Amino acid sequence: MFTEISSSSNRKIKEVIKLRDSKYRRNSGRFLIDGIREIERACCCGIKILEVFGNKETINNFAKKWEKNVSQKDSFYSISNVLLEKISFGNRNEGIVVVAEIPKEPAALTLFEAKICSVSVPLLAVLERIEKPGNSGAVFRSADGAGLDGIIVADSMTDLYNPNTIRSSLGTIFRIPHAAMDSISAINWLRQHKIRCAVSRCNAAVPYTDYDFCQPTAIVLGNEAEGLSDIWYGNDVTTISIPMRGIADSLNVSNAAAILFYEAQRQRL
Amino acid sequence: MFTEISSSSNRKIKEVIKLRDSKYRRNSGRFLIDGIREIERACCCGIKILEVFGNKETINNFAKKWEKNVSQKDSFYSISNVLLEKISFGNRNEGIVVVAEIPKEPAALTLFEAKICSVSVPLLAVLERIEKPGNSGAVFRSADGAGLDGIIVADSMTDLYNPNTIRSSLGTIFRIPHAAMDSISAINWLRQHKIRCAVSRCNAAVPYTDYDFCQPTAIVLGNEAEGLSDIWYGNDVTTISIPMRGIADSLNVSNAAAILFYEAQRQRL
Repeated sequence: MFTEISSSSNRKIKEVIKLRDSKYRRNSGRFLIDGIREIERACCCGIKILEVFGNKETINNFAKKWEKNVSQKDSFYSISNVLLEKISFGNRNEGIVVVAEIPKEPAALTLFEAKICSVSVPLLAVLERIEKPGNSGAVFRSADGAGLDGIIVADSMTDLYNPNTIRSSLGTIFRIPHAAMDSISAINWLRQHKIRCAVSRCNAAVPYTDYDFCQPTAIVLGNEAEGLSDIWYGNDVTTISIPMRGIADSLNVSNAAAILFYEAQRQRL
Repeated sequence: MFTEISSSSNRKIKEVIKLRDSKYRRNSGRFLIDGIREIERACCCGIKILEVFGNKETINNFAKKWEKNVSQKDSFYSISNVLLEKISFGNRNEGIVVVAEIPKEPAALTLFEAKICSVSVPLLAVLERIEKPGNSGAVFRSADGAGLDGIIVADSMTDLYNPNTIRSSLGTIFRIPHAAMDSISAINWLRQHKIRCAVSRCNAAVPYTDYDFCQPTAIVLGNEAEGLSDIWYGNDVTTISIPMRGIADSLNVSNAAAILFYEAQRQRL
């Protein structure tokens, strides 16, 4: 039932390793998922699985449950533990790694738009030029926990299909509706949909707890080192800050996001 | 004025590299700080600097401002950029790396106790068995931002003088009073000081927003994978949870910490 691969110079294995590179991911439209929980979450959310690599037991269990998500029946590869360690991310080896298809952009945007329009008072996040994959992933995980309706990834400096993003999101990036666009398109899209912006900046006059999150709101967060670009101004934009009572002048972006997302939901209860 | 070192086999350079190892740090009582901001924060907070390595310009500027913090006048070493890259953490090279003295435990505990006793309604955090240095550091950074009075590091699985902890804390670990002890000692110490515990667990019945943080409180957070040990029960312990509205069942520990620290301070305003 499974094709066996024993050599690390096998073409399939070499291709899996190439998918660690973001440019190769972009060009091929494919990415890797490792970690059983992350793979199952991707399957639940309709991500198409193209190839499955692992030890016999784990891929057997996976096939029983998720075979319908795998596009071709002959795409299961039984490989040795040594090979698995070679293709797994970091020190993780949960017995299975899959190659999946990156959802196509126009379709993703349509889905995102449909989702947001179906919500009466949407709560969104905008991530502008976030640099570290681990930070993007952690923001998605908090957005999932807080129950945000969607995320706009603006002028992205990383790709969401980076193994580090997927891992630190715990696979929640597959669930939360999101769209990628440049910052100007993002602010225009929000204006078109009458969603106000709560823009997080150090030293802003309005403490975040004074902002009324019960209106349609996008919480806008900027780059780790440089903060936000200067397009985030206007009548529908409120600049808010998180009070800093110690010696540091800012929080880690994923921590700031978590505080703002949960304050918004606390107000909405 | 500065001793020049040009060889990577120099004894001093070899020792600096050894300080990347936690066991060597523990045994020698010394650790490394890189990053100008982190070094300056350490100096502000009274950390004793033992040796300074860097390019002439940067250590000259450093010496002008902070010479009094360096224990011996002949401890400045001018080294090449290649050597600096070798001893800097990650890809960071800000022209200076210092060796500093780990504060002695009994003195640190006395300071911690004095600080907490001077506050009328203390707000603390307890980190039990946190595993990843980056998480500990980010929790310290949020605790600094929220203005917590102190942190107890219980049954620590990492050391606070790990370069990753220092970096992700942005040097705030040098400012916040903290003490290391085992978990049993921590809960006993809190009881002795009449500080209640707000213990964060998935699926607890009490949402964190219902807890009254205006009483003397320690916010207790557990290990990334396994959560908290089972000692955190009693009349003075309330188990609280952060609502999870998506597919993931928990938040990253530093994000959970940030939400709880800032909710506590919001209630206290």
